[in-house]
Amino acid sequence: METSSLVIAVDAMGGDYAPDSVIAGVKLAEQQHPDIRFLIYGDEPKVRPFIEKYRLDEGRYDFIHTPDYVASDEKPSVAVRSGRKSSLWLAIESVKKGTASAVVSSGNTGALMAFSKLILGTMPGIHRPAIVTILPTRKSECVVLDLGANAECTARNLVEFAIMGEAYCRAVLKREKPTIGLLNIGSEDIKGRDEIRQAAQILKTSPLADEFKGFVESDDIATGAVDVFVTDGFTGNIALKAIEGTARLMASLLKDVAARSLLSKLGFLLALPSLKQLKKRMDPGRYNGAMLVGLKGISIKSHGGADAFGFANALNVAVDTVRHDLVGGIAKQLDGLKFLEEETEK
Amino acid sequence: METSSLVIAVDAMGGDYAPDSVIAGVKLAEQQHPDIRFLIYGDEPKVRPFIEKYRLDEGRYDFIHTPDYVASDEKPSVAVRSGRKSSLWLAIESVKKGTASAVVSSGNTGALMAFSKLILGTMPGIHRPAIVTILPTRKSECVVLDLGANAECTARNLVEFAIMGEAYCRAVLKREKPTIGLLNIGSEDIKGRDEIRQAAQILKTSPLADEFKGFVESDDIATGAVDVFVTDGFTGNIALKAIEGTARLMASLLKDVAARSLLSKLGFLLALPSLKQLKKRMDPGRYNGAMLVGLKGISIKSHGGADAFGFANALNVAVDTVRHDLVGGIAKQLDGLKFLEEETEK
Repeated sequence: METSSLVIAVDAMGGDYAPDSVIAGVKLAEQQHPDIRFLIYGDEPKVRPFIEKYRLDEGRYDFIHTPDYVASDEKPSVAVRSGRKSSLWLAIESVKKGTASAVVSSGNTGALMAFSKLILGTMPGIHRPAIVTILPTRKSECVVLDLGANAECTARNLVEFAIMGEAYCRAVLKREKPTIGLLNIGSEDIKGRDEIRQAAQILKTSPLADEFKGFVESDDIATGAVDVFVTDGFTGNIALKAIEGTARLMASLLKDVAARSLLSKLGFLLALPSLKQLKKRMDPGRYNGAMLVGLKGISIKSHGGADAFGFANALNVAVDTVRHDLVGGIAKQLDGLKFLEEETEK
Repeated sequence: METSSLVIAVDAMGGDYAPDSVIAGVKLAEQQHPDIRFLIYGDEPKVRPFIEKYRLDEGRYDFIHTPDYVASDEKPSVAVRSGRKSSLWLAIESVKKGTASAVVSSGNTGALMAFSKLILGTMPGIHRPAIVTILPTRKSECVVLDLGANAECTARNLVEFAIMGEAYCRAVLKREKPTIGLLNIGSEDIKGRDEIRQAAQILKTSPLADEFKGFVESDDIATGAVDVFVTDGFTGNIALKAIEGTARLMASLLKDVAARSLLSKLGFLLALPSLKQLKKRMDPGRYNGAMLVGLKGISIKSHGGADAFGFANALNVAVDTVRHDLVGGIAKQLDGLKFLEEETEK
């Protein structure tokens, strides 16, 4: 094993189609990145057949046999007590030990977050880690967080998310000075919740004041009105799934249209090459790989239903965030949080 | 003026394209419903030219000159003090007085809600009125509430919304025994907020226990997993606008696809009749007209950006809810709330 290559730890047991889709995804990433290596954690009798099926390059991975794994429906509190020999726990531990630079799992989100917090620890200045992802917009792409780690948030939490989202956007989308918006509702009589208004007040006088563009609404995500959308985990999860559901609905209604008449069928056949490009652009797999930001290490959540293409994209996110030293980048931005210590809760 | 016809009060001054789109919408509704009449409230010099332009049938409307109106950006608290001679206030008052059976406005949502509460009053047993609408699903349509009247809700509020949404679904979508779901997030570590869990507990032992299907997620709206989606106004507004934004994004990306190549252009031309049907089905105007439920009278909010077709649909919702005696229907369902008085806050 060459010591100079970047190593990604992989939990082969997490996700609806594991270990098949996980190992197939590793194979895709192996081809895309000739310079990265994999530490694969999983139950040998279950995983080995797929390693053979997809013919992983023997020089590019190490396999660690872990008979235990965390079920997708296991409560994180239970997993924390009983899952310390699981593939997920040991894969995360390899990041802590420095044998891997990042970990990727399609498994139980709550357990991934709980284990990552316990093993890697939270960055100084961050009260709550968050889940961040990239979504397609009319113009290009944007960053949204939190997607479900924190159902309820204080103003301080939201400000932390803004700082982490901004750093993520610089690193992954390569934007120089990303604009930031706080997700809110536009109804004239309420204008959102107290914590959102307070967070806006804090951001207006923060080092991010220039980048902060105030309140945005959830239809602004599709237009890409700002680069970074900041919200609590409940609201972010609701928006994300509403977007996914609508995209799937439109796709299936389009299929109905295509089948409606002979002319439609012919028409869609002619437009097929262009439609395929559209499908590729909107493919959820393309946006798979949500980082748990705010931890002292890189932990990436892949969608439970991810296929090989999706899992490979989550591995890409891991590679990108390691190469751009996202943890270091966020730590640097966190200096900007110091002004908060005097203003809000310690 | 025949006394037997159903009368709808119209605020001609509210909305981005008022009074043009409002009067054009009244004309469409006049043609669709030969048996309804209109009470049109507005500033005569501004409204009269459109009444003439669209040639409203003189026997089908009364015009009430109201020089005052509520601006779209006016704070409801200010409007309540200074807007008592506005077209909006007087139109709602006509419902209270019984000269009209319902009121429709594309204007300021906050003012419409505040005025409606003050003038019409809240139904006994209802602590908070809500905004309810219909959205398209894979199979057909579903009911969603609250869409923005109440940013924060107690468990009791959510249970009230479930009761009102169920009655609305029976009346407008004609479902016999509508299924009900509480909007929540699926992240394994949190499973939503306290008030949602409490509301679920209450519904499980309520007269709606059979219809209540537990928690649903926001991507279940597109599939129509249940008939009635219940949530607080903040979350509902976020979900609604995420859906609208994504639908618009997909439509504009499709237009790009159509223009990409000669073959695509030809293909889309051939599929045009089928695509038009899809566009019609997903047209936001088709779903325009959100009822303010929980009031002792029918008050309908039309989208601020509604065109004539959209406004006519909001008028249709007014007609439908009057004909199905929705207020009476909800009052009857509210008997089912009595069991709550012992269980929760009074």
